[in-house]
Parts: sequence; C-alpha cells; structure tokens
Amino acid sequence: MDELDFDWERQSRIGFGEAVLCEGKTPNQIEAIFARVRQRGASCLFTRLDAEVAARLAGLDYDPSSRTGFVGERAASRSSGAVCILTAGTSDAAVAREAERTLSFHGHQSSMIFDVGVAGLHRLMRRLEEVRGHKVVIVVAGMDGALASVVGGQVPGVVIAVPTSVGYGTARGGETALAAMLASCAAGLTVVNIDNGFGAACAALRHLNTFAD
Amino acid sequence: MDELDFDWERQSRIGFGEAVLCEGKTPNQIEAIFARVRQRGASCLFTRLDAEVAARLAGLDYDPSSRTGFVGERAASRSSGAVCILTAGTSDAAVAREAERTLSFHGHQSSMIFDVGVAGLHRLMRRLEEVRGHKVVIVVAGMDGALASVVGGQVPGVVIAVPTSVGYGTARGGETALAAMLASCAAGLTVVNIDNGFGAACAALRHLNTFAD
Amino acid sequence: MDELDFDWERQSRIGFGEAVLCEGKTPNQIEAIFARVRQRGASCLFTRLDAEVAARLAGLDYDPSSRTGFVGERAASRSSGAVCILTAGTSDAAVAREAERTLSFHGHQSSMIFDVGVAGLHRLMRRLEEVRGHKVVIVVAGMDGALASVVGGQVPGVVIAVPTSVGYGTARGGETALAAMLASCAAGLTVVNIDNGFGAACAALRHLNTFAD
Amino acid sequence: MDELDFDWERQSRIGFGEAVLCEGKTPNQIEAIFARVRQRGASCLFTRLDAEVAARLAGLDYDPSSRTGFVGERAASRSSGAVCILTAGTSDAAVAREAERTLSFHGHQSSMIFDVGVAGLHRLMRRLEEVRGHKVVIVVAGMDGALASVVGGQVPGVVIAVPTSVGYGTARGGETALAAMLASCAAGLTVVNIDNGFGAACAALRHLNTFAD
Amino acid sequence: MDELDFDWERQSRIGFGEAVLCEGKTPNQIEAIFARVRQRGASCLFTRLDAEVAARLAGLDYDPSSRTGFVGERAASRSSGAVCILTAGTSDAAVAREAERTLSFHGHQSSMIFDVGVAGLHRLMRRLEEVRGHKVVIVVAGMDGALASVVGGQVPGVVIAVPTSVGYGTARGGETALAAMLASCAAGLTVVNIDNGFGAACAALRHLNTFAD
Amino acid sequence: MDELDFDWERQSRIGFGEAVLCEGKTPNQIEAIFARVRQRGASCLFTRLDAEVAARLAGLDYDPSSRTGFVGERAASRSSGAVCILTAGTSDAAVAREAERTLSFHGHQSSMIFDVGVAGLHRLMRRLEEVRGHKVVIVVAGMDGALASVVGGQVPGVVIAVPTSVGYGTARGGETALAAMLASCAAGLTVVNIDNGFGAACAALRHLNTFAD
Amino acid sequence: MDELDFDWERQSRIGFGEAVLCEGKTPNQIEAIFARVRQRGASCLFTRLDAEVAARLAGLDYDPSSRTGFVGERAASRSSGAVCILTAGTSDAAVAREAERTLSFHGHQSSMIFDVGVAGLHRLMRRLEEVRGHKVVIVVAGMDGALASVVGGQVPGVVIAVPTSVGYGTARGGETALAAMLASCAAGLTVVNIDNGFGAACAALRHLNTFAD
Amino acid sequence: MDELDFDWERQSRIGFGEAVLCEGKTPNQIEAIFARVRQRGASCLFTRLDAEVAARLAGLDYDPSSRTGFVGERAASRSSGAVCILTAGTSDAAVAREAERTLSFHGHQSSMIFDVGVAGLHRLMRRLEEVRGHKVVIVVAGMDGALASVVGGQVPGVVIAVPTSVGYGTARGGETALAAMLASCAAGLTVVNIDNGFGAACAALRHLNTFAD
Repeated sequence: MDELDFDWERQSRIGFGEAVLCEGKTPNQIEAIFARVRQRGASCLFTRLDAEVAARLAGLDYDPSSRTGFVGERAASRSSGAVCILTAGTSDAAVAREAERTLSFHGHQSSMIFDVGVAGLHRLMRRLEEVRGHKVVIVVAGMDGALASVVGGQVPGVVIAVPTSVGYGTARGGETALAAMLASCAAGLTVVNIDNGFGAACAALRHLNTFAD
Repeated sequence: MDELDFDWERQSRIGFGEAVLCEGKTPNQIEAIFARVRQRGASCLFTRLDAEVAARLAGLDYDPSSRTGFVGERAASRSSGAVCILTAGTSDAAVAREAERTLSFHGHQSSMIFDVGVAGLHRLMRRLEEVRGHKVVIVVAGMDGALASVVGGQVPGVVIAVPTSVGYGTARGGETALAAMLASCAAGLTVVNIDNGFGAACAALRHLNTFAD
Repeated sequence: MDELDFDWERQSRIGFGEAVLCEGKTPNQIEAIFARVRQRGASCLFTRLDAEVAARLAGLDYDPSSRTGFVGERAASRSSGAVCILTAGTSDAAVAREAERTLSFHGHQSSMIFDVGVAGLHRLMRRLEEVRGHKVVIVVAGMDGALASVVGGQVPGVVIAVPTSVGYGTARGGETALAAMLASCAAGLTVVNIDNGFGAACAALRHLNTFAD
Repeated sequence: MDELDFDWERQSRIGFGEAVLCEGKTPNQIEAIFARVRQRGASCLFTRLDAEVAARLAGLDYDPSSRTGFVGERAASRSSGAVCILTAGTSDAAVAREAERTLSFHGHQSSMIFDVGVAGLHRLMRRLEEVRGHKVVIVVAGMDGALASVVGGQVPGVVIAVPTSVGYGTARGGETALAAMLASCAAGLTVVNIDNGFGAACAALRHLNTFAD
Repeated sequence: MDELDFDWERQSRIGFGEAVLCEGKTPNQIEAIFARVRQRGASCLFTRLDAEVAARLAGLDYDPSSRTGFVGERAASRSSGAVCILTAGTSDAAVAREAERTLSFHGHQSSMIFDVGVAGLHRLMRRLEEVRGHKVVIVVAGMDGALASVVGGQVPGVVIAVPTSVGYGTARGGETALAAMLASCAAGLTVVNIDNGFGAACAALRHLNTFAD
Repeated sequence: MDELDFDWERQSRIGFGEAVLCEGKTPNQIEAIFARVRQRGASCLFTRLDAEVAARLAGLDYDPSSRTGFVGERAASRSSGAVCILTAGTSDAAVAREAERTLSFHGHQSSMIFDVGVAGLHRLMRRLEEVRGHKVVIVVAGMDGALASVVGGQVPGVVIAVPTSVGYGTARGGETALAAMLASCAAGLTVVNIDNGFGAACAALRHLNTFAD
Repeated sequence: MDELDFDWERQSRIGFGEAVLCEGKTPNQIEAIFARVRQRGASCLFTRLDAEVAARLAGLDYDPSSRTGFVGERAASRSSGAVCILTAGTSDAAVAREAERTLSFHGHQSSMIFDVGVAGLHRLMRRLEEVRGHKVVIVVAGMDGALASVVGGQVPGVVIAVPTSVGYGTARGGETALAAMLASCAAGLTVVNIDNGFGAACAALRHLNTFAD
Repeated sequence: MDELDFDWERQSRIGFGEAVLCEGKTPNQIEAIFARVRQRGASCLFTRLDAEVAARLAGLDYDPSSRTGFVGERAASRSSGAVCILTAGTSDAAVAREAERTLSFHGHQSSMIFDVGVAGLHRLMRRLEEVRGHKVVIVVAGMDGALASVVGGQVPGVVIAVPTSVGYGTARGGETALAAMLASCAAGLTVVNIDNGFGAACAALRHLNTFAD
C-alpha cells in the first residue's frame, strides 16, 4: 500500500519507537503496516487492536486485556520499581494494563495497585508509603477523577494522571475526570488524553530516559 | 409595582419561607419587594444582594461576606450542632456563609470547618471524627470538587455537595466540580446548583424539618 | 484475579454495603467479583447488570426490569412508607425500580407512583396528599424534568431528583433534565446523576439511617 | 451611511414592519438608521436599545423597562384580549414587556400575569381559567423553564414559550430553559430564542394576522 | 402492568388526544399500553414505533416511512389546504411524514413539497406563491437549517420550523439547525425539538383548533 | 417516488453538478435517485455510499476506499498537478480519497502525499518543495489538526483544511481538529466540515473554475 | 523587549506580510512591536487595535470602524473588482471592513454590498448578477449564517464565509453561524474563524496571488 | 480570620511549598493570608495577584508581568539550564513568566525562547538544538496549540504543554489548544490547565526533585 510513510527515526530522535494506533484503521491497513514492519525486521507496538484482527497477524505477542500487541525485539530490561500504576476501580484496569505493557515493551517493569478509589480512602492510605517509593506514579481513574488529586497531594514524585471513560451520565465519557484532574487543587499534576494509557507510559519514558542519563 | 405576586403560603406548605434572589433584579424591583414585605410585617431572606442596594433597604440585617439580608422576625433557635459546613479553600467561604446564614435565619446554628481541601488531606483527617458527629454535612468545593467524594466515603450522615465557581480554565465556572460530584464514586451524595449555598441550606432544612415533626 | 480490593468496611463506616456497578466491567470481571463475595459469605448489590451475565451467576436474586441483582442476606425489614418514588412517564420506570430495589435490599419498602408527569397535572394533583405523607420523595423524570420543580414546591419532605436519559433531541441524554432540576425555582431540591436510581436510594438511606437514631 | 439597505416591503410581504435590533450596533449606526426612518416618514420598532442612546433620538417613544422604542405611526387598535403573557418570576418582566410593547405597536393589547412560576403552583392554578380564555399564550420563564410545560398541558390555545437568561449556574444563561421547553412532555409548544420577547410577539402576530384576513 | 396512568382527558383539555412516544419503551410496555387503549375503545397515536414491534399490535394502522401507528377512530375530516409541509432534502422526508400523519389522524390533510433546500433556491422560488397560500407552514430541514430563514422572510402565515438530525460533523445531530432556526434573522419563526414532526403538527393543531372557532 | 426534486441546473449555475450524500438516506431512496439519474442520462456523484447499497446500482463506478460512486459521463481531463492532497496519518486516507475522486470526476488529477503528520516533521519537510509547486493544497488531518498550521505557514497557494474524525478522547470526533484549524496562527487557511473531502474538492473546483474562464 | 521574534520572511514565503493581532497584547507590547517595525522600515498591519492604543502610535494609518492600522509602505494597486464582500446586516460591517482594509493594504480594491441578509431575500436577488461578476465572494454573516448557503448555491466563484458574533442567545457568539456555514448544503463553501475578516482577506490573497500567475 | 488553615507541611511532603492563588479571593482575605505567613516567618508564592493588591503587601517581591509575588526566603540556587520555556507568540509571555518565576522561587533558572509559533517554523527550527539540550521543556501556546505537537515530535526530554487563553472565536478561551495538545499525535506529551504556568513549573519541579535525591 502506498499510503504508508513510517517514522523509523523516532527512536533515535525522541527515545521511543514507532507505535500504531489501530482504532480507526481498517484491518487491511493494519495488515499492511504489520507486513512492512516484519519485512524491515523492525519492532513496533500496536495499541487498541481488536482480538479478531490480532489473530490475523502471525508472530504478534498479543495481550487481550490491554488490547496491545508487540512485534520485533523488545528492549532489554532497564528498570524495575521506578513506576507505579494505580487504578481507582476495576473498570480502569484495561487502561492501566496498556500503560504497563507499553513500559514493559521498552524495558521497564512497573508496580500495579488496583482498586484504591477515594470512596474507600483507607485502601489507598494503607499503601501510601509503597506508592511514595516510586519516582513516577501513573494514576488511572474515571468518574470524578478524585484519586489524582489525593495522590498529587501526598506523593512527591512525578504524577501522571490518566482519565478514563469509566462512568455514566455526568462522567461524560471521561471528560469530567479529565477536567477535574486539570483543575485539581494538587499542584504539579500532569494529564494525558482520556483512556490514553499508552501516552502516560510514553511520558514516563521521557522522564526515565532523560533523568537516567 | 404590579409585577409582584408573593408566595406567602410557602412556609406552611414546605416549611421554609419566601426568599428573594436579588441577582437579575433591578434595584427598583428589590426595593418594591422589600417595601411589600415590610408592609405586610412578614419576614424574608434576600440572597446575592449587593452592598450598595442593601444600603437602601432600612432595617435590613445585612452580611456582606455572604451577601445575604434578613428582614422580619427570625425563627426561634431550633438546633445547634446538627449541620456541619466544610470548605475546600478560602475562596469557597462566601458560599459557605450563605448556607450558614440561611440556616441561622431558620433557627439552626451550624459548625464551620474551613480549608480542608484534599490536596492537604491531613487537615480533613484530623477533624474527621468531629465531622462525623453531625447529621447533615454540607461540602462546599470548587475546582475538582474532590472533597465531596472523600467526605462521602467517610461520613454516614446526609451529605449535600455544593460546587462553587472557584477556579479557572477547566474548572469552567463550577461545571467541573458539579459534574465530578454527580459522577462521584462515593454513593448517596446529593448535589445542588453551582454556588447555591442557599439551596444546600434549604435541603438541610427539609431533612431537619421532616424529623422534627 | 488480583485486580480486586473490596471495601468490606463500608457498611460499618457509612451505613450501607458494597455495591458493584457492572456497566463497564467485562463478564469475567463480574464473575470474579461474584465469586469473591460468595466465598466470603458477604452480601452485595449488583447494578446495571445484563440478563445474560446474570444468568451465569448462580444464586443471584435478579430482577430484569431494574437490571439489579442481590447476593447474600438482605437487611431485616426496617421501614415501610417512609419513601415515595414518583415517575413522570413509563420510560422512567426502570430507573425508579433500581431505586426501589436498592431500598428493599436495605430493608425499606417504598411506595411507587407512576406516570404523573406535569403535562397531565391532575394526575399528580389527585395524589398529592399521599405524596406529602412521606418523609422522603424520590422524583424520577427525563425530558424537561419539570416534575421535580412542581413536587419541590408542594412537598415539605426531603426531595431527591433523579434525571433520566428519556427523551431525544434537546433532552440530550438526560443533561437537560439534570440542569433544569439543579436550576429549579423550587428551593431545597437535591439531585443525583442521570439515571442513578441507586444513588438516589443511597441518599435516602443516609437520611433514614441518620434521622432514625 | 452607505451601509444601510432597509427592507421597507416587509410589512406587505409578511405582515409586520421593519424592526431594528440595537444590540451590536454602534450609537452612530443607530442614529443613522433612525434618521433614515424619519426622513422617509416610516414607522419602526427599536429593540434592546439602551437609555443613553435612546436619549439622542428625538421623537422616539421609549420605554426603559423593555428597552424598546417606537417611531412613526403605530398600527390602529386591532385586538384586545387575544394574547396573554405569563412570567415565572420578577426577573422575567423585561422580556415580557418587550413582547407586550411589540404587540402594542402592531395594534394588539395583551393581558399580563406575573410571578406564576411553578414553585408556587397555586398562583397559576387560581388564574388558569383566565389564561385559558386567550387564543395565544406567551410563557416567559428562565431557570428550569417548567412553567411552559405546565401551561402547555392545561391550555388548548397556541403556546409560545420564551426562555430567559434569568438564573445562574446550570441555568446557563437561558440554555437550560430553552432545552427544557423544547424537550417538554407537553405537546405542541413552540419556542423562540432566549430573551426574545420581540420574536414571540411576532409569532403571535403571524397567528393573529392569518385569521384576520 | 401497574406502571400506566393515561391522560384520557387530554382531548377535552387541550384539543388533541393521547399519543405514545415508543422510543425508550420496551416492547412489553408498548404492548401493555396498546392493550389498555383497545380495551377502553379509545384512539391513540404511536410515534417512533419500530416495524417489528408494530407487527405485534393487531389492528394498528402502521406507516413505516414515518414510523407512526393509529389505533381507534380517526377524527372526521376537518380541513384540507390549511397546512403546507416543506422539506429541504430527501433525508428530511421521514420527519415530514410524521407531521403529515399526525395532522391526518386529527382530520387535517396537508400539502407536501419536497427538496426545496436553499442550495438550489429556484426550486423554492417557483413554488413560493403556492406556499404563501397556506395558513400554517411547517419547514423541515437539517444541516444549516437555512430554509426556515428564507421561508420566514417570504411567507406571512404561521411558520413552524423543525430541525432534523440530517447531516454530519458540525450539523451535530440537528443542534446546528435548531440553533440557527432560533437565531434566525427572520422574525416570528417558532421552533420545536429536533426531528419532532409530531410536535410541529400538534402546534399546527393548536392554531387550527383555536382560530377556527 | 414523489419526494425528489433535482437541481439539474447546478452545473451551469455554479460549475459542478448534482451530487448525492447517501448517508441518512434509505436504500430505497438511493435507488430511486439513481434510477431517475439514469433515466435522464445525466451524470452524478454519490458520496458516503455503503458497498452493499452500491452493489444494487447497476452501472455505477464504485470505489470502496472512498465510498464514492460515479454514474454517467465524467468530465474531460482538465488539469493535472494543480491540486495536492496531504494526509497526516493512515486513518485520514479515506477522506483524502473522497476528495481525489471528486476532483477526478470533474476532470482534475491531483497529487497525493500520505502520512506527513507533524509528529515526524522531517517527512513533510523533505517533500515541502513538491507541495509548494501546487496551486491548491488540501490538508487532511484529525487529532490536533496541527498539519494545517504548519503547511499554512510554508505554502503560498490556496490551503483548504479538512479536519477528520480520526482520534479519541479530546479529539472529539473531529471537533478539536476543526477548531484548531480555524484558530490557526497561520493566516489565510480556509476550512470545511469534518470528514468533508467532497466539500474540499468542490472548493478547489471553485478556485480552478474561476480562472479557467 | 526581548520577547519578540518577527517573521520578516513571511512575505517571500507565503505572499503576504507580518500582521499583528493586538487583542490579548498589553499596550506596552504593542508599542514595542510598532517601534521595532518602524526601526526596520518595514510595513505591517495591526488588527483589533483599540483607538486609545492607536493614538499612541505616531505615523499609524488607523481606521476606527475596522480597528485596523497600517504602518509602512502599502502594496501598489494590483486589482479592482476581483473580490466582493457581502454582509447580512449592519452589525456585520466592522468585520467586513477589516477584510476590505486587509485587501486594500495588499493592493486590492474590493466591492462592498451591505444588508443583504436572507430575511429580505429580494435585496440579495436584485444584486445577484453583480455578485456573480466577482472571482471571490466573501460572505460576512452572524445569527443563522444563512446568507452563505444561499450565495454558495447561486455563485460559481470562490466563496469564503465569515461567521460573526452578531446575535444573542442561540447565536452563541458566532458558533451557530460557524457551524451552519460548515454544515451548509451548498457545496464548496470554505469558512474562517468567527469575526475573522482579516483571515478571509488573506484567503482571498492566496487565491489572487496564486491564480494571477 | 478564622477561615484559614495552612498546609505548612507541604514542602516536606511533596517537595514544594505553600502557594496562594489570589484570583477569587478578596483583598481582605489575601492580606490576612499574607499577615499569617509573615507572622510565622514562612515563605510563600502568590499567583494571579493584581498590582493594586500587591501594593498593600509590604515586603512582597512582586513582578507585574507574571502577576506573581514572593515573600520569605527563596530556595538556594539548585539548577540552571535544566528547563527551557517556549512561547508561540507574544501574548503567551505572561503565562511563561509565571512558570519562570515559580521555578526561580524554588532555585531553578530556566531558559526562555519567545515567539516560535509554527506559522513561522524556521524560527523554531533554528533553535531546535538549543531546545533539545534541556531535560524539561515547557511549551506555552494558545490558539491551535500546534507548537506542542511539533516540539513533542522533535525533543526527547520531558515536554509539559501549557495551553493559553490567547486567541478568539474557536480558540474558545484556551479549550481548543488544550484539547489539541491532549489529542496530539506526538506521544508522551503531558498537559496542565489553561494558563497554568504555575502548575507547569510545579510539574517540572517534581521531575527535578525526583532525581536530585
């Protein structure tokens, strides 16, 4: 297909490689991209990839819970325990796992802590010291997004908030969590797009790449 | 002025009296209403009343910080310590005081706890037992409105959340706090309009009146 | 599944137990939660649960019209006639029944009055005395949400308004009823999220728990 | 000024004459329009005209409460008692008076009934027969706009709803009343723009003109 | 089913009978309503009724293009040529036919003129005199809704504008046509909800009922 | 079907012929239109046409990637190399091809350059001189729409920006790219509706036609 | 001031020179920019410049009705009669004049036709041949923006639509006219930002620069 | 004033001290806060502080261009050249300076590069190597916010994007730049609230603090 122009230099330019957002692409387009990657012997991360399409891509390391796939060589292990990923509720797990897989593909193993939403604050509190031990904390929360504000006020490290589309009515598909995280009274939070676990992981990679030097 | 038709029966019908929202009315309209109330010897609460207009209303008990005024007889003292009013930040104080004054006009003295926003969670935590001792808790917060979710998860009593227009950007004049409070993961919160300290107090009155009978 | 961290202490902390919003969770996640509850011998309420998934949960007391399920022991009967639930139209019934079931699970039997929307005002008016006899009134209405304003002006008790997503065009999936209820000229209404019959019931529980003491 | 091209034929084409919306025009533009009208000996209605500018237009019949002005000959008296204008609250009076003045300029005297918002429903109910005696009812209401739904369900004549920008927070400058009126459960309501008393009067004129032929 | 409370007095009160919006109701609810209507020997209009559900209602006069059904006696023929219905494009036809069927059910035969959108203005212009011969003109248009403004400036009768959800992108499901019609520079247009052909017909009925006396 | 009134004079009036937007029309309506076109021997462009419906239209020149179909004689070849179409990413290709096919139907062959989104700026930069060699540049981009701003600042010719619905979360179905393109700091960009490749091509035709005279 | 970095090469790169949007800049910033331009002997266009600030800039050619100022040499006269600017109403004149001044600064004299909004369609129709004689037509309209659709369907040349913030209520500060122009049923319209007369002129310049070659 | 409860432990808990957002607070509230800080001998940052109020606070180190004030001891110098702040245009300078001052108060000197918006891309390109030499890049841009996407694709370090309220029309007070930055095709950008230079600086501090340990 002549509609493709890859950004193969991305790794050397900004420190992490080509990734393909599969949502919005036809199965034919995804197959063509996959073939081109294989042909070049490159490695690539596929996100938001449906299981049925994944099944057509031979040699893909696919994880259905995060809907991510890897092809090519993964990065060597580079860190463990630098990044902690928190979720407010069970429904946020898929987004959290997208972040975890993205980090893993780039050689970083992250800690995962689930179900610490602020409606049951003691669950967060009893693990707070553990959370504070990480350099980067990714907070994944939908609905009111309040977990990010609480964490932001308790943790000294980098806090990257990921609003999710979990919830109904005034949750507005993640817009409310997003706006609340941006308007948070806790200073120095940063925020990525709704359900963008991949983007949060890339932001963490920028930090790890830059400050490890 | 022939444009007025008061709802004098409101007290007997729903348990609290006529109140006048001054915002959106001309000074002349407010003066005419005031004169009608005085003439009848009735009592009335004025909200969102500017100091300059208040100065033209002889005999009004005016409080500038809440922009409320009373005329006529107040209710006899009916309770103290049933209602607690919390604010997230200093800028929420005016709305909180509107609630306090409305309750006071109807005979209820409320407790006030300021500046317990979740960015500094320990401030709330060290007063949590005190908060839990009230039957009704009014939570006044702008920005991310996260205080309501935390309180809602810790307090067994009635929780009435008041979003405020405090904040900028994605705070969107209180719309974000409102949406977040409604989408909260803490069950059984109820919410009133943005900056509506008066309405929160009236909701508290409905609770208090119902069981006083 | 290691993604679960229950809030078992909720009952003792705020007076009502763990509940699971099934929408947004995968069938596997729901089954895992159910198994964990059964294993502990706890009781739990499931909301927004599809019939197909419910059929996989042996021992669940499932009601298709409200899409709610119970597992474990229900609360002993605690009140009858304290809460009245009104609907504006037939399409609002599912939300009303979610509220009724939630109250019933916690031991409260509520009165139900259907189809009293304000376009045919006499239907409400002829049952108004009956409505006024309840301490808490839950008003369920979509479209213009006007029923809440009319009820709020006629009833002295606690009024909890639930906007529904019933309607089309400018009903905007319940946003208009929500905004209208919040902006209502009837003082002291409180409002919960769109279609949140569960939340309205929890708000009623807070009232019943607190003021029964 | 060469920027003007009047629509002098409007009266013969659609049954009511040229009117000038002054908001958004500079004082110089308004003066130029006024001069052109005077020069031609035509009649014209000015709406949303500030008092300071009106004072510069010699010979204008100006009413400050509605911010309308007339120049030229008014229509002969054509009807009385065909149109009734209702307002929900005192703050809606200016919009109602704009409608009344527009009708009056075209020869129709309308009935005005103020302060019949649904929070005090008995005020409307005791005047309902009077309202039902009119062919056209214009309902002017802000906040939740619920008055239109109640009237629409009780009155057989033409009902034209005018949302107003009265209210704060979720009233959203009249957008909520507008949306609620359009989504109303009362069938056959029609709606005009926010605060558009002039437009409601023109709609009434279309009804009255059609059957006067 | 005990969830039904019909408004049988509507005909005598406001001049047109009970109608049922089927969208949002379950097939079981619709069947129950239908049975109740048949049992009473009443007549009723069903709107937004899917063909599959309609097939379960024996004795229903169903029209698939408008998705409307009649049961019971229709009104005797009362007028022909009083109402004209215009559409901007082919996709607006279903909404136009809903209006036509509603009028027909109440005894009024209307004229239909299709495909006169303003992008090909001559199509409207060559039929303008025909349009002007009607007392009520219903304009059905999506996208930019501009047809309503042009007709409103050329026609002296009652103009009822129905925005439709036709279009994509900034058409925003009919919100743009709705807003444009309300903000129209043509005075005295009235507007109903998006896709609400039924409501436009009811508004026409109010006019015909009132002004025919 | 009597619901059709074609605009056959469009070609002579504005320089390009009748086109039919199939989205929102029923298959029966599309077939009726197609039959009418064939019967007259006219030519016509169909856009947003699903493959299943296209299969029912004998003699249609259908392209699935752009979902466009031609019937009747195409325009003679009129230009090649006047128009360049750029896309930011693979998912934008369908919209770009709709533009290309529309131009081709009217006799213009355009250049296509894919995958030059600004996240990998060098891809655009190395083809910039090629882009600058065209009189009209159509920029097709979703997400942040930033490609249009960069191109607008580098290219002297006519730039027509087409926002696409590619992206998720705050991409808001193309609204963000649309707003960003309109608010661009690069002067003299013009913009068409979201996903409107057809409209961009028609705008290009207006430019090309004007100076071909 | 060290905060300035001019884009002096813009003229050679894209065919029109540096322009400064003064809105949002402090008077001190504007003065610093002006001084830098004078010092270099360059020419520059200032838009949205308040009269009070303009008075501080010696040697500026300022026009208060369009709030534009010129400094430095204007372009030699290059065309007359290529561009026609239409306005729907008097309030749109300021935006139209911003376009006219921008074109004039670059050597193009445009025709101006005021007050041809579609509510009085004959005004446009009697000048339609005159409008059709121009290669580029700029349509300036607020409220419903319907003028753009009518013109787009009648004129073969380039049509650039400029929505204005004229109107109230659902005009929403120009958002409705903008959306309606983008969703227009007239093909090949292009649109610029709200009130952006400058941008429309720059788009016309791109056309004139490119196609004059 | 008893409405104050400071968060004095913030420095030790999350690594930067108490800061006061002055917008939304009354001058009296600000004076009370200032007095309390002085009394304790603490240091504090005031943001969005008007010059008139600042003049009442003796001993405040106030900067009018950023509207920030310092009281108490500043942090010792900790870094220089770690952070680079970019602006798209002159109007973004105030927000950039708020970030610079916040960093400076905490001991970090940042590089500033102004006026590198993408409409004149060469301005950015010729300083790209300089930008790439910083660990953290703060990008301040309004309108289309496109600068963040371009920088994000070229720079390997941490990129924190600050949307500003610069622009008009579809810039929507910064909402468009915000949404575009979040939806950016450049991976790993993080975003803070509109005009929140303070927050961007705090986010940078979190990065810098983490690895200083």
